[in-house]
Amino acid sequence: MSEAYVHGYDPRENERLRDQAGTLVDLLHSDTSYPSGSVVLEAGCGVGAQTVTLARRSPGARFTSIDVSADSLAEAKRKTDAAGFTNVQFQQADICALPFAPESFDHVFVCFVLEHLSRPVEALTILKRVLRPGGTMTVIEGDHGSTYFHPDSSAAHRAIQCLVELQRLAGGNALIGRQLYPLMVETGLEAVHVSPRMVYVDSSRPDLVDGFTRKTFTAMIEGVRKSATDAGLIDPESFDAGVRDLRRTAEPGGVFCYTFFKGVGRKIQE
Amino acid sequence: MSEAYVHGYDPRENERLRDQAGTLVDLLHSDTSYPSGSVVLEAGCGVGAQTVTLARRSPGARFTSIDVSADSLAEAKRKTDAAGFTNVQFQQADICALPFAPESFDHVFVCFVLEHLSRPVEALTILKRVLRPGGTMTVIEGDHGSTYFHPDSSAAHRAIQCLVELQRLAGGNALIGRQLYPLMVETGLEAVHVSPRMVYVDSSRPDLVDGFTRKTFTAMIEGVRKSATDAGLIDPESFDAGVRDLRRTAEPGGVFCYTFFKGVGRKIQE
Repeated sequence: MSEAYVHGYDPRENERLRDQAGTLVDLLHSDTSYPSGSVVLEAGCGVGAQTVTLARRSPGARFTSIDVSADSLAEAKRKTDAAGFTNVQFQQADICALPFAPESFDHVFVCFVLEHLSRPVEALTILKRVLRPGGTMTVIEGDHGSTYFHPDSSAAHRAIQCLVELQRLAGGNALIGRQLYPLMVETGLEAVHVSPRMVYVDSSRPDLVDGFTRKTFTAMIEGVRKSATDAGLIDPESFDAGVRDLRRTAEPGGVFCYTFFKGVGRKIQE
Repeated sequence: MSEAYVHGYDPRENERLRDQAGTLVDLLHSDTSYPSGSVVLEAGCGVGAQTVTLARRSPGARFTSIDVSADSLAEAKRKTDAAGFTNVQFQQADICALPFAPESFDHVFVCFVLEHLSRPVEALTILKRVLRPGGTMTVIEGDHGSTYFHPDSSAAHRAIQCLVELQRLAGGNALIGRQLYPLMVETGLEAVHVSPRMVYVDSSRPDLVDGFTRKTFTAMIEGVRKSATDAGLIDPESFDAGVRDLRRTAEPGGVFCYTFFKGVGRKIQE
């Protein structure tokens, strides 16, 4: 059991991470920082939700943040500029066709990207190529199948299942969080360590009730109403009933649970 | 639970509980210790799976450990005697008819008990009565709905659901872990704090693969095969398919997740 008490696994550690988390971002990222002078690739930065946090926690590191979407990159750049960070450069690029020389980064960081890919190990393998031997790869993903709540509701679970199914139809995997360890091992990374980051929300944490249960998770489910009904996965009434029940978990006496997974592995020194 | 699944009666169940306490003891109990001289009620000690740990972590406290079953108490006493602890006294008693004066304990500890009760708040209220104002109540419960794994398997989820259903038919609630916060608040405890204790098991932790995934959780599900099929909840082939899939989560590349919840609250100073 003692080996279980490493960063993030220890429940008290998880609790500490959660308690100090002003936002979800802290829960996920507070234990990531890169040494001064290191060169880090953020693959799939999107609109920069994590980029400002990375730059803030590692002011001496130099980040290259890539995304396939020019629009997303523009928004990410706007965010980091507004926060006054100059240690991030943005570049439009596809993970599957990286415009970088082999072993050109000291570390690689990938967050909420693999869930969208049909061949995650292939993507990790490509990313591993641009990582120098001895460098670390950090991967963060959620897992929608980790969701449970009080009051329990099969209608709410059905609504969540719509998002899982839509993501599957789009070639992704909304249950990928639990798979990080085997995926990273299959990629050939060594010393892989995965730690769950459970978001536990009860009425004693109104900030999380509002910020996570309502405005993050339930809002995300509500966001697929049209896609789910258009795809014939569910009828509108059943979907709405599920969303109503999800909202109830944010009322007094409600409880909501969701778990993210964070994996760190190292490229083998050859 | 049904008679086939009352904690501690069946020798195999007994062994399972011992294995469970062996691997989970730190996860669940490392942050529980009582001051020297304090008087603590352990309500529903069963075969003493937690009693030795309590006694060890609080050598200066005096424990009264109660259970309805004389057989379980005898086994619990054997365990604490064998471990050389003299700070525990055992007494046969029903939580719903406590033979103690009001406010006679400094602290109350209840672990894996509420899941079996149809009126958990009533039980907590009775326990609160024997707690002195300012004293703490600690409650630990699992939540079978917190179970997910890789490879995912609907057959495995159906087998688990049999145990949930059996416990419900017996008047209990196998999903009670997530409800600790609202239940403790409803009991009128103050400063209630609930923390999840997630057991995350991947191939990097062979001790947990064997001690938890195989010998605790999967063994527990296997243990209800006869009850589940006798009750017509599932056919034997489907049940066995579910158990086979659960076992696969303990093979290389498999991942298993389960969460316990621990709540601590205080009796209001009047």
